[in-house]
Amino acid sequence: MTVTDDLLRNAQRYAESFDKGSLPLPPARHVAIVACMDARLNVYGLFGLSEGDAHVIRNAGGVVTQDELRSLAISQRLLGTREIVLVHHTDCGMLTFEDDAFRLGIQAETGIKPTWASEAFSDLDADVRQNIARIRAESAIPHRDAVRGFVYDVATGGLREVE
Amino acid sequence: MTVTDDLLRNAQRYAESFDKGSLPLPPARHVAIVACMDARLNVYGLFGLSEGDAHVIRNAGGVVTQDELRSLAISQRLLGTREIVLVHHTDCGMLTFEDDAFRLGIQAETGIKPTWASEAFSDLDADVRQNIARIRAESAIPHRDAVRGFVYDVATGGLREVE
Repeated sequence: MTVTDDLLRNAQRYAESFDKGSLPLPPARHVAIVACMDARLNVYGLFGLSEGDAHVIRNAGGVVTQDELRSLAISQRLLGTREIVLVHHTDCGMLTFEDDAFRLGIQAETGIKPTWASEAFSDLDADVRQNIARIRAESAIPHRDAVRGFVYDVATGGLREVE
Repeated sequence: MTVTDDLLRNAQRYAESFDKGSLPLPPARHVAIVACMDARLNVYGLFGLSEGDAHVIRNAGGVVTQDELRSLAISQRLLGTREIVLVHHTDCGMLTFEDDAFRLGIQAETGIKPTWASEAFSDLDADVRQNIARIRAESAIPHRDAVRGFVYDVATGGLREVE
């Protein structure tokens, strides 16, 4: 019995009590959220989202790389979202290592140094601002006037805006 | 009053009733889930996850690009996850357009053709298998023996494994 098998039993229960019907493809709230993959960051719970409300984009750090620019362009151009919310959080794993050491460690173990950067960062607020700047510089994203960034506190559940 | 302001009011309520205390950084269930950003796909609800259980990685399509390989490598190497679950879904926006037309449309409008591919696909099951293959080929990800892929049905809430 794997963890995945256990999650599948939960999915079976979810389907048995599913009562959402056929919701439309475009998000009802016209918003896309970019957040860290961290297990303690429950995006639906935090923002009070229901099925159908918002696009949720997540990765290690909640950073904006080419893949998030791709997702945001698709979100706005094809599915009508207009606002973007970025969420970093306290006690983030990305604060605990450095890019060079991480990639050289992989090279030492596997013989291959990753072609991708780890996107590790040392300052939460500075990285939120960096990611907002990356979005503002992406001409493929039509709506860049409503982009706001936040730091979530995993110990208190509080959310603080980065100015 | 923007949608973001409205979400912030929900976040305030979440903080006021927050009772999780300080959870550990590594996911308790040792699993990472890669899923589409689609608004109808409630990953926490579907898999019965609570705060602290699993890494959740999401993008347009739930596809595996360099950024997901980066996130999965960090998830396993630094934070101890060992299983990977991929989730595509029915009625996906990625089935509704073609890469060339999407990128040429952006070029026609902005003057700049994106350097990134859209990752649009035409066959859900084939794309799930393609993404499993991308993970299995990534030597920077240590644990590649427990990678399973699924298609979520947005109309019924059901989950079907891709063989």
